[in-house]
Amino acid sequence: MTGDIEAGARHPGDMDPEAYRHAARRVADWTADYLRDVERFPVLSLAVPGSVRGGLPASPPQHTEPLDAILTDIEQLLIPATTHWQSPGFMAYFASTGSAPGILGETLAAAFNVNAMLWRTAPAATELEQVTLDWLRQMVGLPEPLFGVINDTASSSTLYALAAAREAQSDLRIRELGMAGRPDLPRMRYYASDEAHSSVEKAGIVLGIGRDGLRRIPVDERFRMDPVALRQAIHEDVAAGIRPFAVVATAGTTSTTSVDPIPAIAALCEQHGLWLHVDAAYGGAAAIAPELRWVLDGAERADSIVVNPHKWLFTPIDCSVLWTRRPEVLRAAFSIVPEYLTTTEGSDQDAPNLMDYGTSLGRRMRALKLWMVIRHFGTDALAQRIREHCEYASTLARWVSTEHDFELLAPAPLSVVCLRAHPPGLDDPGTLNALNQRIVERINAAGQFFVSHTKLRGDYAIRVAFGNLRQEQRHVRGIMSALRGAIDDVG
Amino acid sequence: MTGDIEAGARHPGDMDPEAYRHAARRVADWTADYLRDVERFPVLSLAVPGSVRGGLPASPPQHTEPLDAILTDIEQLLIPATTHWQSPGFMAYFASTGSAPGILGETLAAAFNVNAMLWRTAPAATELEQVTLDWLRQMVGLPEPLFGVINDTASSSTLYALAAAREAQSDLRIRELGMAGRPDLPRMRYYASDEAHSSVEKAGIVLGIGRDGLRRIPVDERFRMDPVALRQAIHEDVAAGIRPFAVVATAGTTSTTSVDPIPAIAALCEQHGLWLHVDAAYGGAAAIAPELRWVLDGAERADSIVVNPHKWLFTPIDCSVLWTRRPEVLRAAFSIVPEYLTTTEGSDQDAPNLMDYGTSLGRRMRALKLWMVIRHFGTDALAQRIREHCEYASTLARWVSTEHDFELLAPAPLSVVCLRAHPPGLDDPGTLNALNQRIVERINAAGQFFVSHTKLRGDYAIRVAFGNLRQEQRHVRGIMSALRGAIDDVG
Repeated sequence: MTGDIEAGARHPGDMDPEAYRHAARRVADWTADYLRDVERFPVLSLAVPGSVRGGLPASPPQHTEPLDAILTDIEQLLIPATTHWQSPGFMAYFASTGSAPGILGETLAAAFNVNAMLWRTAPAATELEQVTLDWLRQMVGLPEPLFGVINDTASSSTLYALAAAREAQSDLRIRELGMAGRPDLPRMRYYASDEAHSSVEKAGIVLGIGRDGLRRIPVDERFRMDPVALRQAIHEDVAAGIRPFAVVATAGTTSTTSVDPIPAIAALCEQHGLWLHVDAAYGGAAAIAPELRWVLDGAERADSIVVNPHKWLFTPIDCSVLWTRRPEVLRAAFSIVPEYLTTTEGSDQDAPNLMDYGTSLGRRMRALKLWMVIRHFGTDALAQRIREHCEYASTLARWVSTEHDFELLAPAPLSVVCLRAHPPGLDDPGTLNALNQRIVERINAAGQFFVSHTKLRGDYAIRVAFGNLRQEQRHVRGIMSALRGAIDDVG
Repeated sequence: MTGDIEAGARHPGDMDPEAYRHAARRVADWTADYLRDVERFPVLSLAVPGSVRGGLPASPPQHTEPLDAILTDIEQLLIPATTHWQSPGFMAYFASTGSAPGILGETLAAAFNVNAMLWRTAPAATELEQVTLDWLRQMVGLPEPLFGVINDTASSSTLYALAAAREAQSDLRIRELGMAGRPDLPRMRYYASDEAHSSVEKAGIVLGIGRDGLRRIPVDERFRMDPVALRQAIHEDVAAGIRPFAVVATAGTTSTTSVDPIPAIAALCEQHGLWLHVDAAYGGAAAIAPELRWVLDGAERADSIVVNPHKWLFTPIDCSVLWTRRPEVLRAAFSIVPEYLTTTEGSDQDAPNLMDYGTSLGRRMRALKLWMVIRHFGTDALAQRIREHCEYASTLARWVSTEHDFELLAPAPLSVVCLRAHPPGLDDPGTLNALNQRIVERINAAGQFFVSHTKLRGDYAIRVAFGNLRQEQRHVRGIMSALRGAIDDVG
């Protein structure tokens, strides 16, 4: 060994801590400018496919490039091709806003860069996750004990919940023996409403239950699962020799934010020994406001519940909370501990290894940003912001119902309004659908707002979603003007 | 509507852009100090279970708390309970270092906070992902065309690859009909070596293939899959009416970094129509150094390949690249497009919707940090850093082989060394295992280094992994001293 390497300069491309400090302050300023100016950009990017791809070199650089060159490319190439989820004009899908404490939490998590696979590899991250999820449990009014883990998305959380539901059918020994080529196995079935999220269906595909394994249950006139139809479906399947194993109830469906009648569904699950998973990815946050706590009525009887702080709790994506009353079953569905990951610390309750509760071995420190959001806002302010978003939706819904050429297509119990233009005398379904599609395109092309659409009973619906952290009353008035202007232009 | 709300102050807990700017600069400084001082902390946390849980309030705060209070808690409560993956003394598992450009990339991604589920919801993130993964493809010397997506972890990437492999058995119609209660289905089997990662087994459990669906293939004296045994296993299974569908070859196993003979395995897969997935989560990055490109020999014939930039490419966790030569099969395994996510932009090739290639609908902008790392380092510097890590391992392995009371337990082809203390005359296996376990505990308790262990042919092995961005020759000398000191103390 020589001393040369030790005395040598830092490696090219790496920064020493002082160079990093300078760069990090620049990026801090850059992001502050971005958040200050975000309303100036078109919300839905006007870029055409290939604009970023075509603007970048076809091959990677051989030598180091300065941060300035990278930031210039971000400004000139990436910003024009960015759809600005941070803009208060973003009213599509469900909101996902990164608040200031959330962004700072992500920076700190990246600086620590721990892998919270085992308690010992990240004690602080592991315990902070438990404490923060217990705080959130109290905030939404769910009784303890409730074991929680943070996953990337609700798609993963629902997949894990249904994997646990499958594992709970322990007599079938699916973990050990699989399902293929086993004449001893019955067909299996789980249930969700016609309005349940696509991830519920995708989870069944991944788990080998198949699309046919999901039976869709009709909804009532308010887009809520019909528990009478659910009971009937379970009885039919049992009579046909099929094994029911789970029901997914939704608290806040994607199209209309309808809330399934969870108490009635829970009663059926208890009667038939089915795993009840409550998909409250969007709606669960509403329960922080006491007057909206009803959205989780009955969820205290669920086997598992998912709530996404990255949707309506101002935490940067990704952050999805999966709670379960049966952690031992979730763990049985996933735990494999090879020799190189064996540890000796404490019991599983004192020092859980969170890799044992899902598919991903590697786990970043997602709890930090959520903990910082809760602390910096406090529960009162979070409840108040959610309350205001629901008030914005009520204001818009009232306006729609009083305008002669617009109509509501669904109740708006939370922060989303489904509506359409329906000029008097214009009743042809195809013409109405085309008109409303043109209105959506017109609004989105104008740049100030981005709204999305859905279909309700075959009708094209304009879907206006509040929930962005930075939305104010002026944005409610703004979307009304945009709707009015668009129907006048294209109607 | 009144003007009151519009004119009112920002919501409590939220920060206006100037308050955010001030806070972000503070956090920039805080993280710079952390990275400067990281070697001062014990690498493996000395905390006991409950220290963080017990130090935080049992309930969330009702009112806003200042950033200062949060940073104080991080310093006083979280830092002492943190295992410092950023420390150059971290030599456990596989390294995962967040470089400066990587941390800055995470901050920027959190500020944009886009969801790259659809091209239109994040054109820049979607196209940057494609461009960056094509750069990385060139860097590791794989031929085009190769479609890439970024997932959270290799566990997910391997799960998705095996889901595609199952889907490729299209005559079985598993996506539609599932596997349970179908007497028409054969038993199914996939193959990986005894040394393959636990995530390969977990994927089969999730997919409903079951643990019995994975057949483990023995390894040779250098811990590489034996292709003769693989051929024999496939023949036996086919003869027994079992349907083989995939092989997972590993380029850089977790215990010893052995590299399976991919060309011979690829030939068998081609002959039998099996999906070949190459797990190069750790080893793939080595191919950036021309003299190490052999680790991916044969991977150009694979159906899918996983490489984790968050392991050996200085990109903060999480960032796992899944490439496939058969994107249409991966897409068929996962794509479900509900009405509210239908779009009209371009073709799938021009404007892909990356949610269609895995379980997670929500996708954060993971490409930005990787792109910034590649640009700020340049390919030469990345190759050089990887080369040096391998030289550190060679240096340590040479030292071990010349010390009379230590021995190597496996070849060290890349950046990891498996060794043990073996004092002359001490040959009882149980005594040797206990001695080496005490050495590991001694080293880790001293705080300067964190090493992990594995078992090789029943023997407890001390596992020293280089690969941390900030490691230098002095750390190689340091771990030699620590090993020497520990055997003298506890031997």
